[in-house]
Amino acid sequence: MKTIHTISIVGTGNVAIHLGKALLESGITISDVYGRNTSNAKTLADALSCTVTEEIKNVKGDLIIICVKDSAIQEVAELIPSNKLIVHTSGAISMDALNSHDKFGVFYPLQSISKNRIVAFEKIPILLESNDKELLNELDRIAKQISQKTVHLSSDERKTIHLAAVFVNNFVNHLILQSKTIMDSKQLDWQLLLPLLDETINKLKDLGPLEAQTGPARRSDDTTINEHLSLLSGKEKEIYQLLSESIKQTYQL
Amino acid sequence: MKTIHTISIVGTGNVAIHLGKALLESGITISDVYGRNTSNAKTLADALSCTVTEEIKNVKGDLIIICVKDSAIQEVAELIPSNKLIVHTSGAISMDALNSHDKFGVFYPLQSISKNRIVAFEKIPILLESNDKELLNELDRIAKQISQKTVHLSSDERKTIHLAAVFVNNFVNHLILQSKTIMDSKQLDWQLLLPLLDETINKLKDLGPLEAQTGPARRSDDTTINEHLSLLSGKEKEIYQLLSESIKQTYQL
Repeated sequence: MKTIHTISIVGTGNVAIHLGKALLESGITISDVYGRNTSNAKTLADALSCTVTEEIKNVKGDLIIICVKDSAIQEVAELIPSNKLIVHTSGAISMDALNSHDKFGVFYPLQSISKNRIVAFEKIPILLESNDKELLNELDRIAKQISQKTVHLSSDERKTIHLAAVFVNNFVNHLILQSKTIMDSKQLDWQLLLPLLDETINKLKDLGPLEAQTGPARRSDDTTINEHLSLLSGKEKEIYQLLSESIKQTYQL
Repeated sequence: MKTIHTISIVGTGNVAIHLGKALLESGITISDVYGRNTSNAKTLADALSCTVTEEIKNVKGDLIIICVKDSAIQEVAELIPSNKLIVHTSGAISMDALNSHDKFGVFYPLQSISKNRIVAFEKIPILLESNDKELLNELDRIAKQISQKTVHLSSDERKTIHLAAVFVNNFVNHLILQSKTIMDSKQLDWQLLLPLLDETINKLKDLGPLEAQTGPARRSDDTTINEHLSLLSGKEKEIYQLLSESIKQTYQL
């Protein structure tokens, strides 16, 4: 396999923008951008110092990186000539969504990538997979230009990580929203809780979360648990109850 | 009321140790320590350059800070002469647990304080309450010697904060434990998730958790939700389901 020198970006969303910029900044040439929305494609192409390709079958990079929503990956891939090297960037979608092609793979940055936030790719693990050993080596070489950490994993392993990531990112964020809702309901300043949040994270990193657990459920303090439940209603109450039961069960209290 | 110059610490647990040290380092004199376990009391008294008082009724500070477990606060307080200025350090217990005394209050550092961790009190909000305005002023003066942030709150407000803190600290930690359990079950390195955890926290601080929410439940992606549920069982499955429902409800999807 030839060394990959140029990359096409398919898609114009957050991953396309941030990954494209990180690749460009690491010295890789972005050849072109394809996007259904031609205005967005033009904007991104300008940012990546490259051209817009108007028909997807004409994308011209040595490697095509598909950065579209999960449900469109397979359909978009099938529009690209099957002899092109092609990868997607999704945590949840199996590599086999690209098996219309000869050589294909996955290039998944394990991070929550948002439009207006700076993404420090060097700290982000990039999870790689390919049906072709040479392509996997090339993906690893490219990933290492933007990140200190690359890992070669199967689609099943990547799906497990994506599931765990929902707990770490989506569910943690939602619990913090609930803490804010509770504070707001009494006109209390939510920001008072942020030093506690920082220490929570630092402590669980140092000790591991099994050792770091404290609180009423951990010490089976039903007086406090019941008082807290009496202050809650709806989904917050259900969540308090279920998580307290789960903590008790973990420590077999 | 006389200015408070000396403080007695009642109790020898984590709060007693760390709060005592912070007060001492800020230039306040600890007069004595009382603890049921005389060996622990001796160790703490040595660390705080003070004496051990063997009978609790003889504690000699201008202010007595009670740092014992919640269920013992009232009982311990009643053993101390009622003309002594007295505070407890609990988030969950009403100030009125001390109403056997003339002047009393609460001095609650809003943090998870663990034995072997350095506690940076200057960043920790200290929540204050008293039945006496002069004592409240004195508590504020003392708290400001160790922390940049003091807040005067009622017992009900403090209880609300304590409840919200359970979400921020205990429940967030438990969700991270579940992410680790999921990763461990497939021999995957849990530490891969830590950059995502950091970004989760940074993002919700910047945007607020309502705006920061992403993920399958946020976009009502039932295909991914159902695939994830099929990989889970037991309490983890129940938690995934309930939190996903709660996220959908939050955004009325």
